Amino acid sequence: MNKRIAAFGEVMMRLQVPNSELLTQANTLQYSFSGTGVNIAAALGKMGHKGYLISTLPENALGEAAYSYIRKLGIETDFVYRRGSYIGMYFLESGFGSRSSRVTYTNRQESSFNTAPRSFYSFKDIANSIDFVHFCGITLSMNDEARVQMKELATNVKAAGGKVVFDCNYRPSLWGNNGYQIAKPHYEEMLELADIVMMNEKDAMLILGMHTNQWDRQAQLEELIPKVAKRYDISIIAGTHRSIHDNHLHTLKGFLYKDSQFTYSKALQFAVLDRIGAGDAFTSGIIHGFIQKKSYQWTVDFAVTTAKLAHTIVGDTPLSTEREIMQAMNHKVADVVR
Amino acid sequence: MNKRIAAFGEVMMRLQVPNSELLTQANTLQYSFSGTGVNIAAALGKMGHKGYLISTLPENALGEAAYSYIRKLGIETDFVYRRGSYIGMYFLESGFGSRSSRVTYTNRQESSFNTAPRSFYSFKDIANSIDFVHFCGITLSMNDEARVQMKELATNVKAAGGKVVFDCNYRPSLWGNNGYQIAKPHYEEMLELADIVMMNEKDAMLILGMHTNQWDRQAQLEELIPKVAKRYDISIIAGTHRSIHDNHLHTLKGFLYKDSQFTYSKALQFAVLDRIGAGDAFTSGIIHGFIQKKSYQWTVDFAVTTAKLAHTIVGDTPLSTEREIMQAMNHKVADVVR
Amino acid sequence: MNKRIAAFGEVMMRLQVPNSELLTQANTLQYSFSGTGVNIAAALGKMGHKGYLISTLPENALGEAAYSYIRKLGIETDFVYRRGSYIGMYFLESGFGSRSSRVTYTNRQESSFNTAPRSFYSFKDIANSIDFVHFCGITLSMNDEARVQMKELATNVKAAGGKVVFDCNYRPSLWGNNGYQIAKPHYEEMLELADIVMMNEKDAMLILGMHTNQWDRQAQLEELIPKVAKRYDISIIAGTHRSIHDNHLHTLKGFLYKDSQFTYSKALQFAVLDRIGAGDAFTSGIIHGFIQKKSYQWTVDFAVTTAKLAHTIVGDTPLSTEREIMQAMNHKVADVVR
Amino acid sequence: MNKRIAAFGEVMMRLQVPNSELLTQANTLQYSFSGTGVNIAAALGKMGHKGYLISTLPENALGEAAYSYIRKLGIETDFVYRRGSYIGMYFLESGFGSRSSRVTYTNRQESSFNTAPRSFYSFKDIANSIDFVHFCGITLSMNDEARVQMKELATNVKAAGGKVVFDCNYRPSLWGNNGYQIAKPHYEEMLELADIVMMNEKDAMLILGMHTNQWDRQAQLEELIPKVAKRYDISIIAGTHRSIHDNHLHTLKGFLYKDSQFTYSKALQFAVLDRIGAGDAFTSGIIHGFIQKKSYQWTVDFAVTTAKLAHTIVGDTPLSTEREIMQAMNHKVADVVR
Amino acid sequence: MNKRIAAFGEVMMRLQVPNSELLTQANTLQYSFSGTGVNIAAALGKMGHKGYLISTLPENALGEAAYSYIRKLGIETDFVYRRGSYIGMYFLESGFGSRSSRVTYTNRQESSFNTAPRSFYSFKDIANSIDFVHFCGITLSMNDEARVQMKELATNVKAAGGKVVFDCNYRPSLWGNNGYQIAKPHYEEMLELADIVMMNEKDAMLILGMHTNQWDRQAQLEELIPKVAKRYDISIIAGTHRSIHDNHLHTLKGFLYKDSQFTYSKALQFAVLDRIGAGDAFTSGIIHGFIQKKSYQWTVDFAVTTAKLAHTIVGDTPLSTEREIMQAMNHKVADVVR
Amino acid sequence: MNKRIAAFGEVMMRLQVPNSELLTQANTLQYSFSGTGVNIAAALGKMGHKGYLISTLPENALGEAAYSYIRKLGIETDFVYRRGSYIGMYFLESGFGSRSSRVTYTNRQESSFNTAPRSFYSFKDIANSIDFVHFCGITLSMNDEARVQMKELATNVKAAGGKVVFDCNYRPSLWGNNGYQIAKPHYEEMLELADIVMMNEKDAMLILGMHTNQWDRQAQLEELIPKVAKRYDISIIAGTHRSIHDNHLHTLKGFLYKDSQFTYSKALQFAVLDRIGAGDAFTSGIIHGFIQKKSYQWTVDFAVTTAKLAHTIVGDTPLSTEREIMQAMNHKVADVVR
Repeated sequence: MNKRIAAFGEVMMRLQVPNSELLTQANTLQYSFSGTGVNIAAALGKMGHKGYLISTLPENALGEAAYSYIRKLGIETDFVYRRGSYIGMYFLESGFGSRSSRVTYTNRQESSFNTAPRSFYSFKDIANSIDFVHFCGITLSMNDEARVQMKELATNVKAAGGKVVFDCNYRPSLWGNNGYQIAKPHYEEMLELADIVMMNEKDAMLILGMHTNQWDRQAQLEELIPKVAKRYDISIIAGTHRSIHDNHLHTLKGFLYKDSQFTYSKALQFAVLDRIGAGDAFTSGIIHGFIQKKSYQWTVDFAVTTAKLAHTIVGDTPLSTEREIMQAMNHKVADVVR
Repeated sequence: MNKRIAAFGEVMMRLQVPNSELLTQANTLQYSFSGTGVNIAAALGKMGHKGYLISTLPENALGEAAYSYIRKLGIETDFVYRRGSYIGMYFLESGFGSRSSRVTYTNRQESSFNTAPRSFYSFKDIANSIDFVHFCGITLSMNDEARVQMKELATNVKAAGGKVVFDCNYRPSLWGNNGYQIAKPHYEEMLELADIVMMNEKDAMLILGMHTNQWDRQAQLEELIPKVAKRYDISIIAGTHRSIHDNHLHTLKGFLYKDSQFTYSKALQFAVLDRIGAGDAFTSGIIHGFIQKKSYQWTVDFAVTTAKLAHTIVGDTPLSTEREIMQAMNHKVADVVR
Repeated sequence: MNKRIAAFGEVMMRLQVPNSELLTQANTLQYSFSGTGVNIAAALGKMGHKGYLISTLPENALGEAAYSYIRKLGIETDFVYRRGSYIGMYFLESGFGSRSSRVTYTNRQESSFNTAPRSFYSFKDIANSIDFVHFCGITLSMNDEARVQMKELATNVKAAGGKVVFDCNYRPSLWGNNGYQIAKPHYEEMLELADIVMMNEKDAMLILGMHTNQWDRQAQLEELIPKVAKRYDISIIAGTHRSIHDNHLHTLKGFLYKDSQFTYSKALQFAVLDRIGAGDAFTSGIIHGFIQKKSYQWTVDFAVTTAKLAHTIVGDTPLSTEREIMQAMNHKVADVVR
Repeated sequence: MNKRIAAFGEVMMRLQVPNSELLTQANTLQYSFSGTGVNIAAALGKMGHKGYLISTLPENALGEAAYSYIRKLGIETDFVYRRGSYIGMYFLESGFGSRSSRVTYTNRQESSFNTAPRSFYSFKDIANSIDFVHFCGITLSMNDEARVQMKELATNVKAAGGKVVFDCNYRPSLWGNNGYQIAKPHYEEMLELADIVMMNEKDAMLILGMHTNQWDRQAQLEELIPKVAKRYDISIIAGTHRSIHDNHLHTLKGFLYKDSQFTYSKALQFAVLDRIGAGDAFTSGIIHGFIQKKSYQWTVDFAVTTAKLAHTIVGDTPLSTEREIMQAMNHKVADVVR
Repeated sequence: MNKRIAAFGEVMMRLQVPNSELLTQANTLQYSFSGTGVNIAAALGKMGHKGYLISTLPENALGEAAYSYIRKLGIETDFVYRRGSYIGMYFLESGFGSRSSRVTYTNRQESSFNTAPRSFYSFKDIANSIDFVHFCGITLSMNDEARVQMKELATNVKAAGGKVVFDCNYRPSLWGNNGYQIAKPHYEEMLELADIVMMNEKDAMLILGMHTNQWDRQAQLEELIPKVAKRYDISIIAGTHRSIHDNHLHTLKGFLYKDSQFTYSKALQFAVLDRIGAGDAFTSGIIHGFIQKKSYQWTVDFAVTTAKLAHTIVGDTPLSTEREIMQAMNHKVADVVR
Repeated sequence: MNKRIAAFGEVMMRLQVPNSELLTQANTLQYSFSGTGVNIAAALGKMGHKGYLISTLPENALGEAAYSYIRKLGIETDFVYRRGSYIGMYFLESGFGSRSSRVTYTNRQESSFNTAPRSFYSFKDIANSIDFVHFCGITLSMNDEARVQMKELATNVKAAGGKVVFDCNYRPSLWGNNGYQIAKPHYEEMLELADIVMMNEKDAMLILGMHTNQWDRQAQLEELIPKVAKRYDISIIAGTHRSIHDNHLHTLKGFLYKDSQFTYSKALQFAVLDRIGAGDAFTSGIIHGFIQKKSYQWTVDFAVTTAKLAHTIVGDTPLSTEREIMQAMNHKVADVVR
């Protein structure tokens, strides 16, 4: 059963310093185009759905390159528009072992996406063409216009009978001073509109200001998430706990809260080639499991495996097919596949 | 006789698509840092002077990379400051033969340089440390604050006994609608402050609104430039005429107007590897000839040869030494130099 | 007025030795995916039409890569199917000046496209979805099954009211011994089905066995092409004459024969970056002029300019937009476009 | 004591996607030439023997590149012939951690090697020029002609007093449906001709259809291998057991069965850079120990260390010298060698 | 409190084979310029001090490239001179896991640095301009002239009130046969001049010929180092113990001996990207802690963390800022830094 | 008729800055191994002869890489020995148009080749194994030992009935002050031993101190070369006149003097990709024509065409086959060769 999922979000140009060098050392960059929306639409496309992006790209060579790139990813581009002159960018200096990766952003406020007025989109028509819509907290942080557009589109989709997915994805640096206070009402509006929410106990505490006396992460989670689900009437809440070790190893454990019940994946430990975008892989896996009406256990296992594989692929965007993910769920790592 | 020359201007990150590909085709970029000020300071440094840059770079990894890069170019960095978060960038798709090169800018208005307030610089102290200051019309187009800073610094340098060089370098796309009208008064103020001006007859007509009934470029030049020199009391006006042919060949002819007299270089024809920044090479050559009290003919020949060599070097910034330029002035192209 | 044009043909993997090295010298290859059909569909897409490809790709990683690549080119992939295991490939050692480029093919007979049975395609449905169909003599040389498919699809398109374009594109090495005799009846069938044909006097003499006592190329052309048009009832015949000089310069002159009248473009001389695929650019320009109901002179000038620009772009596939081609028609080569 | 060892087998072109990218992501490939025969001849050459390859390469640029490459590897090319047009190729997408490497083959049936008739080789002359000949199960899977050639050459070598090495190397995908049944008689013929055989218990069960009630791999091995050695009168049987872990670690343990006695190496665990071809390194080590009349323990330790080092070298072909392997046998990993 | 630290030493050109290939496999090299002096001056510059290099570079394109490179590293070049024609070089084949890295040197004896006569430098003036001077045992091994220069400069610095740092850094291959005997008197002279010495128990035994009956490294260290400090009147002796594991993991533990007391860092285990130059990072950390009058524990922890981070950065030269090192001292490895 | 030709000379490592950058700009180098001897042996190998190199390479990773590389070029390595530690190197910064290429050498005096004693070679045995030996003036400039070896080997070859080829190849920078005076007696000895000599009128004037009152190059040539041939009893003298134009075009005209008669090739003009080593291509063509007993006109045309093609191939070493050169002699530049 395949669905039409649209993600609303900015396309970013990723400019990565190759070979683990620093920006002061190298003289070449590898570029690609991504963003949470791009990642979600591409990942669900690989799983057999129609993955749409709702976005705006500049009317110049950069916009052309971004457009070509997302077509290459298999994304449906019916709702990708061209307007304005700028695209958001980030520079990535890949870490190594005990040296963390470092991201440097350019100014995104003037980007085509962040300056497109709500009148530029026909949200009603879009809502009628899709089954799911995905939003992300990063977009919510951009500016008032973006926030209005998110809520308007979410409202339209719900009205048209579709489902709303919201990934909290809180980035403190994007909200400035008193960020949590500024962010909270917007997050609450989105949570009220959402059917599926990606978050964990930290979001509950930091964004929503909830409290717990527990010290253990899982205990905190199990105390707070049910309250969130109840307060905002959310059908599914899912998320991950991550630990980072030396030597490129991460441990990742997924959870899924639905019907007053927590389901956990195994804690997977794996070597990491490219960490960025792996959260979107987990989200895509949860959506896919939900669409396919799979068991909670299958869904969270599938989602965390999707995330694991996303860590082994260059670039932000998950590229594994459903078949590859299922093989990785069931088997240990194989010798060369011929 | 070596002098201290400072150039006031923005550092740009240049992101070039390699191998003559388009942005839609490639996946790597070559990056370097340049800008008119960088080019002038580096070129004059190679000629034996102290080349200073007066600029502001962001306090992040991009600013660090830019700072390292201009140190590598041999530029004196005493007046290079760190503040803010962004750096201007441009993407370069190199042309080939009958396909022109194409430049796509990112938003520069939010760059560290373009948002630094005048109070951030000690123009008086800087003025006392240098013999020449160089400005460019591109900076003049940025915003009111930049314009005020240019004039304030120029005034300080003149007061301290230094010389002011101004390169008109009018870029229509930077001034918007009615650009010429907006630009004219600012250009006039700079021309009044300047001792050495880089321009040609087109600037006189377009920016200053002057008229001529001549059709031939050289006749226009010889009618208009003396009027400009007189009206704004400019000691030296110099510039070039360029023709572009198929097959990577350009023809370049320089002129120098001083003491009511035009001196022309030969029209050089040569193959072009990297056209960008070659105008700054010409300017540097004129300044160098002036400092060295060379004849007008030597000066304009040296300047146009500096520009010719700059076309054969990768990147915006001229890197030829005085000795290399003089060899190229006097000899035809040599076999391998061992 | 935009149309739906479909090209029927094989997707080839192009594996190019970089930096003008030979296969014995290098250790890396640059790869892309092309083919006459790909080139036509992409070029017409860039001109504002819907460019479809009708082809079959293998069900493996190479097929996946080819599929992504042609999506990136903006080609409509509704009629691109997956089946079999192999893809045709060619290795390109780029020449330099007086050293010619050299192409080495792998075995194409086992490719997915060349082994797909006619029952695999719904030619009737395809014919009802398009306005134009394009075929090429290379496909005609492959095997009997391919020849049958070409004729069946052409017949369906004509029955559905569409136009048939046929590019003779005779490659002696693909037809083997007695190639012309084997090829002639198949070419004649295609010429009878075609509305627009790409050929010149050499094709008339070599493939169709026509004779002339003229020695001059243009005189031969003007004697033979009208006979071909008449004999096979072809509405438009167009083609080019090419001369190759040392130092990467080619001269190209286009002609268009319609309504018993020859129209010629100027003979353009230009530097060549990538010669392969430029013939398809010319074809695309002729089709575009025809669709837009432009004058014969505009059409042949547009087509030859499209071809000229295709020589300045890396890869087989023309990527210029209609606007870029029109600028190049009207102006000489520009300085940097900012 | 140095010997002349010839390996009979196809030269493959390896086309690797760099930087752990997928074929859909990258646009460059790294190429080299390998194959089991190439690997064996090169590895034994590095150990001080004369390593010959018996093969056929196409008469074009690819054949020229392959020929140059195997000369560079130090292989003796007296028995490398040129004929035909095609070479076998495979594309390698390198895995990372929990994502396995993936190999995609092109059609090898039409390659120069696989279409060369037996009359093309002078097997008798070759047999008189060498001390050992090496065959591999991959060649056995190709076609009847290849199988006949293997047996004819093996028979000639035995007649001339040389030794026959046979590596079972069963690849199910190469034998098609009912592969084991088709393969078994051919394997049995080769086993009867062979003096040294590379295999393990899986080959005994799958190819030869032998049965065991043991569950443990080593117990299965120790039950079945002696039966194989006896039934086919094989002097030496050797092989490895491999386990693959996350994070690029493999464990490898070698065994050697001779004179009714099993000798095992330590189980080595090590990080893997390039897994392909490492089995051929093990074989080479066994042959070298045999030639040098070393103890069984030394031989299997040397062989497994040769394999370990082959995993740390880019490309299929083992490149370690005897001295380097012996250092790695005796010492732990060293700091920088200066 | 920032100081002026000068390092006396040769600039080497490092030519690294990329992608873990061997020199026989690759065809490109990555180059940079380093050397113990470069590393110390750059590392202390990043920590906020003025890092000077005292060296001589050739008067040609290689000298120009080296000069630009060390300027890029932020090194003060007031005492970098140009003379002669050659520069020392080394080729680096990076190891992988159980395969060690391998370094091949070119002839350094004819380099500009190693042939510059003592009269070429004004050691007295230099001594008056700096607070610390750093020497390394590698320079001591070069030739008599270099040894005289080291001692003369050290004597001048002490006379001017500065501190002398000496890193024993004994390389057997540089001293030839009977190397220890030849080296010992020179090492003793340097130890007598030094305030801070980098060494461990191996240096005490091998270079100074000291004996111990202890078997354990730490016990040997604690017996011998106090004797060395006493005999040569050294204020601080510091150094490291390193263990190398498979899979790119190293363990490193630092010690600091001062005031008759040993202080040890934790034994850090970490993945290694580039091992070369990491010893200089440790030295820089010790010097920085001493200048900042930090506790012994802070100093040795800071130094070993500086070394750890240097292992995660491409190239010989440590590039971490004081802030980055302190973050790594206090925290575990972070997720992406945005 | 194929012959055995050996060239005596040093193997150099060529380290080229890619993409026309300067050493101060780039961070990668492309490396290969060449030298006059390598070029001659490889070029004649491609023409169907046995091309031997007589040389000595270091016993380390660089020597191994050089050895593998010359095997790849198809050179016979029976007389290539291993001894010592160093190899000569040169850095190449490729020019562009009016900017000349620049070569920077490292110290070659300590190279394995230049320090191998005469006793290291069995010149008598070598002489008995070959038909021709080739020497070059660069080797003659190295040191007395090299000069003695050249003369001893030449004498042995003549005694064994072989022919001696000597290429004057005078490089002023290698002979130092008063270079011509030092060089003259050695050149005279070599000329007396030589059967075929490569030189032109400049060599006659500068090295041999001959005089002429002619001003025109060809007139000088025709006056001086017959005198040289007579005085030193040389059978064939051949050489070229080269003119270098802007825009990568060179003009080259060859001459052959034999039997008191000059034969000239046409003056070829062509675009240049890599100028280095093209003189060796000319020499190889002359030797080939002589061996094949071709007419003087064929020989000089073949030689100059070999040189022309060598300018279109990356690297020092000519790689064209006899068939390719003959095609280029007879035809104009072809379209893509498929």
